[in-house]
Amino acid sequence: MKAVRVHAYGQRPSVDDVPEPTVSGPWDVLVEIGAAGLCRTDLHVIEGQWADKARVALPYVLGHENAGWVRETAGAVTNVAPGDAVILHPHVTCGLCRACRSGDDVHCERRQFPGIDRDGGMAQLLLTTARCCVRLDDGLAPADVAALADAGLTAYHAVRKALPLLFPGTTCVVVGAGGLGHIGIQCLAAVSAARIVVIDRNEEALALAKKLGAHETVLADGGHVDRVLAMTGGQGAHVVLDFVGERGAEAEAWAMTRQAGSDFVIGYGGEIRIPTIDIISSERNVIGNLVGSFNDLAELMSLTAEGRVTLHTRTYPLDAVNEAMDDLEAGHLAGARAILVPDRLS
Amino acid sequence: MKAVRVHAYGQRPSVDDVPEPTVSGPWDVLVEIGAAGLCRTDLHVIEGQWADKARVALPYVLGHENAGWVRETAGAVTNVAPGDAVILHPHVTCGLCRACRSGDDVHCERRQFPGIDRDGGMAQLLLTTARCCVRLDDGLAPADVAALADAGLTAYHAVRKALPLLFPGTTCVVVGAGGLGHIGIQCLAAVSAARIVVIDRNEEALALAKKLGAHETVLADGGHVDRVLAMTGGQGAHVVLDFVGERGAEAEAWAMTRQAGSDFVIGYGGEIRIPTIDIISSERNVIGNLVGSFNDLAELMSLTAEGRVTLHTRTYPLDAVNEAMDDLEAGHLAGARAILVPDRLS
Amino acid sequence: MKAVRVHAYGQRPSVDDVPEPTVSGPWDVLVEIGAAGLCRTDLHVIEGQWADKARVALPYVLGHENAGWVRETAGAVTNVAPGDAVILHPHVTCGLCRACRSGDDVHCERRQFPGIDRDGGMAQLLLTTARCCVRLDDGLAPADVAALADAGLTAYHAVRKALPLLFPGTTCVVVGAGGLGHIGIQCLAAVSAARIVVIDRNEEALALAKKLGAHETVLADGGHVDRVLAMTGGQGAHVVLDFVGERGAEAEAWAMTRQAGSDFVIGYGGEIRIPTIDIISSERNVIGNLVGSFNDLAELMSLTAEGRVTLHTRTYPLDAVNEAMDDLEAGHLAGARAILVPDRLS
Amino acid sequence: MKAVRVHAYGQRPSVDDVPEPTVSGPWDVLVEIGAAGLCRTDLHVIEGQWADKARVALPYVLGHENAGWVRETAGAVTNVAPGDAVILHPHVTCGLCRACRSGDDVHCERRQFPGIDRDGGMAQLLLTTARCCVRLDDGLAPADVAALADAGLTAYHAVRKALPLLFPGTTCVVVGAGGLGHIGIQCLAAVSAARIVVIDRNEEALALAKKLGAHETVLADGGHVDRVLAMTGGQGAHVVLDFVGERGAEAEAWAMTRQAGSDFVIGYGGEIRIPTIDIISSERNVIGNLVGSFNDLAELMSLTAEGRVTLHTRTYPLDAVNEAMDDLEAGHLAGARAILVPDRLS
Repeated sequence: MKAVRVHAYGQRPSVDDVPEPTVSGPWDVLVEIGAAGLCRTDLHVIEGQWADKARVALPYVLGHENAGWVRETAGAVTNVAPGDAVILHPHVTCGLCRACRSGDDVHCERRQFPGIDRDGGMAQLLLTTARCCVRLDDGLAPADVAALADAGLTAYHAVRKALPLLFPGTTCVVVGAGGLGHIGIQCLAAVSAARIVVIDRNEEALALAKKLGAHETVLADGGHVDRVLAMTGGQGAHVVLDFVGERGAEAEAWAMTRQAGSDFVIGYGGEIRIPTIDIISSERNVIGNLVGSFNDLAELMSLTAEGRVTLHTRTYPLDAVNEAMDDLEAGHLAGARAILVPDRLS
Repeated sequence: MKAVRVHAYGQRPSVDDVPEPTVSGPWDVLVEIGAAGLCRTDLHVIEGQWADKARVALPYVLGHENAGWVRETAGAVTNVAPGDAVILHPHVTCGLCRACRSGDDVHCERRQFPGIDRDGGMAQLLLTTARCCVRLDDGLAPADVAALADAGLTAYHAVRKALPLLFPGTTCVVVGAGGLGHIGIQCLAAVSAARIVVIDRNEEALALAKKLGAHETVLADGGHVDRVLAMTGGQGAHVVLDFVGERGAEAEAWAMTRQAGSDFVIGYGGEIRIPTIDIISSERNVIGNLVGSFNDLAELMSLTAEGRVTLHTRTYPLDAVNEAMDDLEAGHLAGARAILVPDRLS
Repeated sequence: MKAVRVHAYGQRPSVDDVPEPTVSGPWDVLVEIGAAGLCRTDLHVIEGQWADKARVALPYVLGHENAGWVRETAGAVTNVAPGDAVILHPHVTCGLCRACRSGDDVHCERRQFPGIDRDGGMAQLLLTTARCCVRLDDGLAPADVAALADAGLTAYHAVRKALPLLFPGTTCVVVGAGGLGHIGIQCLAAVSAARIVVIDRNEEALALAKKLGAHETVLADGGHVDRVLAMTGGQGAHVVLDFVGERGAEAEAWAMTRQAGSDFVIGYGGEIRIPTIDIISSERNVIGNLVGSFNDLAELMSLTAEGRVTLHTRTYPLDAVNEAMDDLEAGHLAGARAILVPDRLS
Repeated sequence: MKAVRVHAYGQRPSVDDVPEPTVSGPWDVLVEIGAAGLCRTDLHVIEGQWADKARVALPYVLGHENAGWVRETAGAVTNVAPGDAVILHPHVTCGLCRACRSGDDVHCERRQFPGIDRDGGMAQLLLTTARCCVRLDDGLAPADVAALADAGLTAYHAVRKALPLLFPGTTCVVVGAGGLGHIGIQCLAAVSAARIVVIDRNEEALALAKKLGAHETVLADGGHVDRVLAMTGGQGAHVVLDFVGERGAEAEAWAMTRQAGSDFVIGYGGEIRIPTIDIISSERNVIGNLVGSFNDLAELMSLTAEGRVTLHTRTYPLDAVNEAMDDLEAGHLAGARAILVPDRLS
């Protein structure tokens, strides 16, 4: 089969002919990939930023945002069958540790991350397990949803955690209306009646945010923190979802969080730096957010099936992976997510 | 009446004869003070550290940890009557704003703080309101509980917030077994079955911690973070209650918090400084904590009435306020709380 | 002023000239009534069904669903000022008991219920207190919202309590698309992404339900329980909101609740009757629901100001109260709420 | 191996020589039974009460409360190894359905119940799966804990669900101080500071309840409901845990539940019968409770390892199963749990 493999850090991947993976473990599921999302993390992987953490042997197959069709299942699999269209939770988990037993797949003690620490899904086939498979509703195609497997799931997870704080009359500030932010806005509009205020430095992204459910938008031109404070009676927002997390956005997110409110950190690259007296005197919280659970992904698929969450995508054949990476690096995607679509196996 | 008043920042207070306060507002309650806790914050007030925030006109009466007996109530007061022994919530609140209406007294939009921004309770009488008064059970005397009005309430509030995270089998690390920490340990032991691990640099404080309910203690000698990690299978604690919040303890608290765990900041003076990638990759939280609500105080009094929370105190007559302050500054209290006891009015 | 008073049980009320109430207590607020909702409960009051519970001295003024404009406030009132448009929480509460202190106004130990156990708001003026007043946004008029003060608040409260159970992919069955049900459907659609299935015996009510946000409707023709089971894969709904609570609907609501699900009882008149083995083997719950809190009302006003909750009303002058009662009794209101509008005082 | 098998409903089981079960599925675990609890449900099984629900082919092996030592594990098992002492969750679950994925094992779509609908653990060996195995701490022996696998787990689960309602100052009434009740009392005392009031018709059971943590006890002599109301200022308890659920106890449990409180149904046999107006006007809840989850069992083992939950047991050799049943039927166990201990296999 065809697969996008990293051969050396610092070099672009190549599309190789490799042997097809085969089902062996009792919960194994072999999935024919219908779509693999391209993510900025893939660029970081190639640069070698994940080399020490992942300790994966090169060459290996990229791709951690995948959807497709089940081709073969091992004997113990009861939740999907060959032919089923599926989206794949990004983590392979054990199902037996205390985290797995509480539904918190993401903190599985034995989790693996295909595309990062083992072969991923930029290929015609991916070997995964039954615990990763969320069956798609009839109306949904793999290419429409693949980018929700990681980017979307992260945005939904943060919104889901913030939900109890977002009753009618509250304000939620979304910092960064990029790929994750756009999904976050749609999720917020679907599951809450909170007032949604979106901040970005790009006017087009803000215009799109409005279409997707933002009640108000604020251009990040330097005066945006003050503007948000003014919009909230000087108080700040009950919840800030910081999809940027770097270059000063992380400090601004905190500054826009009201007393007893919560600053949800989702983006990264920067540093949170707060005097403890500010934390206690205002009783504010900093909430960490990683990707969501299996059930989060199933819920997100419910929203997607109802048309409440949609993605802007640009598709490329698998062979054009480097062209897609060029477009991502050059900022030519204009808010769309690049999706690699392999040829179907015969 | 006698009252401990600050006349100028940088100078010790004096015990003055001042006019008795009188009931005027509809919810006013005049309380004969039975005990007023002395707190490190009082020293900071005298040094002028609160001058800008409080903007209180000098001279004014110190004292924000008070208990006593109701002497007189205004017409609208229905919850207490003259003669009732009471402990006083430290904040005077409006009862009408959204925070008050949700039980979150501490974030009242119009809150006042007797002893900080208006006359406090180091005096024979304090003018407060019905909303501050928690009636004491028969077995409790003002001198036994006064220090719970602020220090104890802060410790209980943090424990109460952490409780849903502290199911059997979890570990709670208490950083700092001083005044607040000792109360926190007792509250934890009373309301949870979590394993309680206490860290302090003082062996005596650790010995007392064991008596009060700590399952294990760790001397803060430089190797304590590693020791806590070893005690938790390398994972860290589900909850860390950081009663220190300065001089490096705040960074250590974070380092001892496990994946998906929460670091509760209660002490202050230092700075939280965490790369956003560490926040998101481990999905940990930093939780701010201020003093508790009225209902928190009522709950804490339930624990106290049952003998589950006790205080080590050293009492001084009101006139000896400066002697008490000397002992506090010199570290001569050995973990006890200094309590000022005014003469009863005839 | 003009007021609708009950003089004897079993007789229709008369519109009388009565002295204007006057502000006396410290939190008193005198409200010029802009609109008073007419409710089936008013008919029950007249019939004497509430006589024993309310023990109110006759004659007295009816009306427990009120909105208007503040005319005068007592000295301690800080949250509203003369001229403010307000909607009034139906319970006068003390603000000092443990229930009030936790935001649970409805279980205030000293609550009064104007229109039931003291003079109500079918009059030109109503004496209430600051704790009842929710200020209206500029776009809202008293006549538009009055019926939300009790009927709407009850529906919203139940939805709000059910919300943590209603994540995407879950099903909520609404039993009864009458006055409360219609508001409940709008609230559900505004604050959740649950699938909303509405049952009623009236096709018109179901057609309106669809417009207001129901995803599916089921005619209550005898086969409706089976149909709901079929629509949920034989499982039943995660949440059933039973706005009927009598004539068999209460048993059907339980039968349509899935394992580990919850049956919210809101309507009344019937009897819940379930073998305990059915309760434990399916681990289902029966949840009681009364009217909402002050904060619930404030949240509902947020939804209303955004146009997410609207009411169908028919207005009558105050003098026409008996005509309105005739229409209500005769079923001539066709789903609309009767609203009495007094003449403005000069 | 030896096994206690039911050959015909209405007849006592016999101890038979049967072939040893063998590991086949990927998560299979073969456990050498150290102790099998005898439960009233076993008597009901023999009487045929479960015949229609279980539809198990006779003869089959009884026993649904088991602990022992792992003898053999299938290839995919990572959480236990041969030689480990384990207690077994009573349900065999799939790990793939939405309930399993949220930690709610008990509502697994494909759950099986060894001892009820497939061979159980009154035998020298039991075939179970990795998902059932909770490893025991070093200090715990199978015979000490077996009865916690079902009876204890049910009691703990109810307490765990009630916990958010049981803050200091609240009252929890425990109805029935038998096998489950005694464990419930210990769990309550371990994880909450609520006031525990225990009701039973047996003075000895009440005396034991006091030793185990009850603050007050009430003899069920007809005046007990009134006495509980008097003990709670006429209000009733915040939480009632009804371990009886029949013969009128279910109505009394409701009558002792205060406004906005919750009646937890755990025992069964009777019928809940409440006018809907009582449910809504007091806003009380009826909460169903089944056995706990895997994580509940792990938490309960934490409490047990710390000595906070202990069991009164009487052990019998496996061959003496009918003697044990005689003692259970005759009421000769005096509150102790009968435990069958098979001979160890060589």
